Amino acid sequence: MGRSYWIWYPGDFELYHGMKQNFSRVERGFGWPAFWKSEGFRNRVAFRRTYQLEKETSFTVYSNAIGHVLVGDKKYPFGKKIVCGSGEVAVGVHTGCIEAFPCIYVEGEVICSDKGWIVEDYDKEPLPAGKSKYFTEPNQNPTVWEYSEKVYEPVSVTEYNGGTLYEFETELNAVLEAEFKNGYQPVLICCGESREEAIDPVHCYYSWQPDKETGKCPCCAVRFAYIPDCKPGEVILRANHQYVDIPVKASFHCGEDRLNQIWSVAEHTFRLCSGIFFIDGVKRDKWIWSGDAYQSFFVNRYLMADADIDQRTILALRGNDPMTKHINTIVDYSLLWLLGVDYHNEGYGDRDFLELVYPKMVSLMGFCNGRRDEHGFLIGKEKDWVYIDWADMDKDGPLCAEQMLYAACFRAMAEISEQIGKDGSVYRAEYEKLTAVIEKFFWDEEKGAYIDSFTSGRRNVTRHANIFAILFSIVDETKQEKILKNVLENDEIPAITTPYFNFFELDVLCRMGKLTEVLDKIRSYWGGMLDLGAVTFWEEYDPSVPKEEQYDMYGDHFGKSLCHAWAASPIYFLAKYFAGLDLVNKDGVTYILKPQMQYFTELDCTLPVGSNGVMRLVWDGEILEITPNADGGILELGEQKLSLVRGETRRVKI
Amino acid sequence: MGRSYWIWYPGDFELYHGMKQNFSRVERGFGWPAFWKSEGFRNRVAFRRTYQLEKETSFTVYSNAIGHVLVGDKKYPFGKKIVCGSGEVAVGVHTGCIEAFPCIYVEGEVICSDKGWIVEDYDKEPLPAGKSKYFTEPNQNPTVWEYSEKVYEPVSVTEYNGGTLYEFETELNAVLEAEFKNGYQPVLICCGESREEAIDPVHCYYSWQPDKETGKCPCCAVRFAYIPDCKPGEVILRANHQYVDIPVKASFHCGEDRLNQIWSVAEHTFRLCSGIFFIDGVKRDKWIWSGDAYQSFFVNRYLMADADIDQRTILALRGNDPMTKHINTIVDYSLLWLLGVDYHNEGYGDRDFLELVYPKMVSLMGFCNGRRDEHGFLIGKEKDWVYIDWADMDKDGPLCAEQMLYAACFRAMAEISEQIGKDGSVYRAEYEKLTAVIEKFFWDEEKGAYIDSFTSGRRNVTRHANIFAILFSIVDETKQEKILKNVLENDEIPAITTPYFNFFELDVLCRMGKLTEVLDKIRSYWGGMLDLGAVTFWEEYDPSVPKEEQYDMYGDHFGKSLCHAWAASPIYFLAKYFAGLDLVNKDGVTYILKPQMQYFTELDCTLPVGSNGVMRLVWDGEILEITPNADGGILELGEQKLSLVRGETRRVKI
Repeated sequence: MGRSYWIWYPGDFELYHGMKQNFSRVERGFGWPAFWKSEGFRNRVAFRRTYQLEKETSFTVYSNAIGHVLVGDKKYPFGKKIVCGSGEVAVGVHTGCIEAFPCIYVEGEVICSDKGWIVEDYDKEPLPAGKSKYFTEPNQNPTVWEYSEKVYEPVSVTEYNGGTLYEFETELNAVLEAEFKNGYQPVLICCGESREEAIDPVHCYYSWQPDKETGKCPCCAVRFAYIPDCKPGEVILRANHQYVDIPVKASFHCGEDRLNQIWSVAEHTFRLCSGIFFIDGVKRDKWIWSGDAYQSFFVNRYLMADADIDQRTILALRGNDPMTKHINTIVDYSLLWLLGVDYHNEGYGDRDFLELVYPKMVSLMGFCNGRRDEHGFLIGKEKDWVYIDWADMDKDGPLCAEQMLYAACFRAMAEISEQIGKDGSVYRAEYEKLTAVIEKFFWDEEKGAYIDSFTSGRRNVTRHANIFAILFSIVDETKQEKILKNVLENDEIPAITTPYFNFFELDVLCRMGKLTEVLDKIRSYWGGMLDLGAVTFWEEYDPSVPKEEQYDMYGDHFGKSLCHAWAASPIYFLAKYFAGLDLVNKDGVTYILKPQMQYFTELDCTLPVGSNGVMRLVWDGEILEITPNADGGILELGEQKLSLVRGETRRVKI
Repeated sequence: MGRSYWIWYPGDFELYHGMKQNFSRVERGFGWPAFWKSEGFRNRVAFRRTYQLEKETSFTVYSNAIGHVLVGDKKYPFGKKIVCGSGEVAVGVHTGCIEAFPCIYVEGEVICSDKGWIVEDYDKEPLPAGKSKYFTEPNQNPTVWEYSEKVYEPVSVTEYNGGTLYEFETELNAVLEAEFKNGYQPVLICCGESREEAIDPVHCYYSWQPDKETGKCPCCAVRFAYIPDCKPGEVILRANHQYVDIPVKASFHCGEDRLNQIWSVAEHTFRLCSGIFFIDGVKRDKWIWSGDAYQSFFVNRYLMADADIDQRTILALRGNDPMTKHINTIVDYSLLWLLGVDYHNEGYGDRDFLELVYPKMVSLMGFCNGRRDEHGFLIGKEKDWVYIDWADMDKDGPLCAEQMLYAACFRAMAEISEQIGKDGSVYRAEYEKLTAVIEKFFWDEEKGAYIDSFTSGRRNVTRHANIFAILFSIVDETKQEKILKNVLENDEIPAITTPYFNFFELDVLCRMGKLTEVLDKIRSYWGGMLDLGAVTFWEEYDPSVPKEEQYDMYGDHFGKSLCHAWAASPIYFLAKYFAGLDLVNKDGVTYILKPQMQYFTELDCTLPVGSNGVMRLVWDGEILEITPNADGGILELGEQKLSLVRGETRRVKI
């Protein structure tokens, strides 16, 4: 038998499951579907392939749709073996499905649904069919994701205020299952990311009455569960943790326990937020946000290096053409989507995916280009959300930080266009034009910094645009130094307060060589959460807030997500700037390793190198040992450059 | 309680049910979804309305979707009573649904889902919500159509070739239900529109094994049913005929039995093809075709005058914006859609509907305008189907018949634009430009006719373009007379062979006063089918074909549809040109009646006047009696014009 996959119109799998994801948010008994344009899947598609058969062969087509198989000009039903003779034979599979995306599975020796099928939707040109490595058996149904499951028993069961409180070893995304010692009771099971939330039946986000037949509750984020008016022992509770089994390729162990713990908690946080897609948080919003996903791509590269979850997320976010609204309604999130594709492409170099997604990049740029002002600046139109950060910023007129991202997009488009053999010169010219007007309107020579807005007259400086300017290499070294001094190291410029923008700021500080400061920040900021008992990292953390208000957010006592993907960034910083691994994938060089061992007494870490390799680094305080299981590595120690060979351990005394 | 409807994003109900309709075709065990772009419904919409409450009130929202009700800034689940105090209150209902279009039902004294809600899809500007008079109760589900049902017992049960043959009194669209006298048997029930089809288990379209639990088969077209290897009496069969109960407002009885029978069979044919939408045929294709629907609008006006089925069909056909493909892939079917909206509007004048559909008309014209050649002629691009008719026609380059329809569209757009207070002058100018180039390139003065194509050099003349030229009043009277002589009454020009184009030709002949010829054609062509035992009228009929091949079509022995909507046109001709009723709806005149009683010895007919009135005409050979139950009528008898008053019978001796 040939190796078959379930196949579908490319992107429809992601749009369908993406909608399920974005409609899965529940809050105190009501649903909260994401408040942006939801992109639908196609309902009527035809799959086609022509074979040159050397001899008679047979095949069977399975589908979730209604339709038929067309062989030559004869039609056959699904599910029955079709025999065809030798010679050229054109196979078409016609499908229609209303409730979900149509998909097919072709089982046969020669004619089978491996790579090579094209699919058309009667609208656009046919495209290569989409598939997933998770759906390879004819009895599967690609519209239902098959989660992996692990059962957790509570680590403690205690009486509290007349009820029973259950604690699990960590936060889970689980189906709670109740076993009733004295027969089914319609109890209320209150869940919490924190103990405080679980024991508050009125204000906790999730409270369920278990199903009478199965004793099961809907899947939700849970670390603590509380059943009011219930004595310990009356109800046995276990948690069926549901997850997508994406193997972690990295490990990190250094001489400093706190850093190890930060890595470990960041890893758990990140894995909880890495399901079918990268979502923001596991309790809330459970939505696919482009800016959040952008940061997840960075952590993924160093933790799981799973190209598939990147790609599913990218396709779910972007939706169909024509593009008519910003992704998640946010101007910067559209731009970060494109920069995310660029980052993904740099890391995994999947040409098929790039060709699928390139037209969507082009149309996204076209959409943005249609929303420019007279200077060529990208502006927010009615109902567009100009986000950048939850920060006090002068958002009058075009915003400098947006233009920095926009400029970076033009450069990325130029490079990617050229990479797939298209003309990138228009994008390059746009980049030059835009960066020139940015300099003209936003650079304040006196302040030695970029201002937020030039239309308000306030000439206000925040960190955001200045951080992007360096991060996306839009500004030259002289100005970079000025920004470092006048903005980044200037306490008069308001500090970044969100973990979301922390990511960008710490990245810039690392780039500017401020590793000591970054490591201290990791220890204090993420360590601060550990001190408050965190087992996953939070959406937001402000050390100055009293402990009893630490779970407040958005005016809601338990509004804060205690497991938020964007808080997992220490993995990225530790791997990229301290272990020092940087992917290059250019001119024969796969990666460069610039280990900064001065920050560690000892270190034993393994890191992925793209999706197909890993690299182990062991440091005992004197000898550095590098064992790569990947090609094309270069070890840089100061001026010294040593090549690294797959399978060969290199030992260096430093 | 206020009068509530289920409400949804306008058009989504029609797109959803339209897809179900277009995916319902089954043929010998396999499904055959329509082979064009299927337009999907929205999955995420928000309904909004602001109330000024004089006192406290309460309401409950029901939905098929997940989501919540937002009152002010507080969220509530569906299905629970919400109380709100007096003053201004903004109600939002947020819904997400993947499998079907989201819809809501708001039950309450003051706050209820009557007219006045708007709905947005996070893409385009909010629109007034859609609704249907068939869905007004909270326990209904608008994604499941509730068909009316009538049980038919067979009129005969006979033994044939070792099996049992059941005959019903006429053709039905029915769920057959089997009752087994000796316990369930997995029999095969073969269905046929004809006896010949039913007794041919291999070639009949529909053959079912009844469900073991219920004894029921899927719904299909059936007049005869045959169970092989089954003695009469072993299986009792009855038919549950499923239909949409649209009342027939017209009746027709004249002194000529054959005409009465033609009317009656046409009526039955038409009603079988009038379900949720106008479909082409009840056995096959069961699809919504724009050209077929266009003709159905004409029959509907004179038989049921049901504006709703027109509107559902119009919305299902046109789909979403942007328009990217021709309707049903056919260039002329896009144009006929627009002309169909124009005809519908003339007949029922529903302003709300016109405002909903007008932007779709504009974008359809924009789409067509983007597919013009250098002369301004509309041409078929790759994968467009230039249909016009199943006829031998010179289809090289731009086709004259298409340009006639296109010109008519420009004029209709100009008029409708002005009707809703917009500028129609651009369309009017386009009309002038296009008709000028049509004259220049397609009119052949020597032949006194329009040629099919000017690019091939063949200067071939067929009837089609010439018929459209008169029908849509594009040509002046002098040329009309030339066309009549040189084309319509010229036997050297190939005759129209399809009932589809017969409609247009007979319409033109009526317009040109050739009523005798038309009546003879009705008697012979439709009467010819009756002579062959037809109980419904056929997709195609050629008297010269031997009887045993009369059910052949598309190379398939039972390929011909024996119940096809476009064959119901005698109703239109008899009502409009013989009873003589023409709707005007302009300058205070609702309708003009020009009865042509010379064709009847006697006549008693009732005809709808738009959707809200009827008119009865009785003729005994001497006295004409008109009893209108509609305003604004004028009776024209030769030069004489008499006004008709609602409720007053007018008697005239003629």
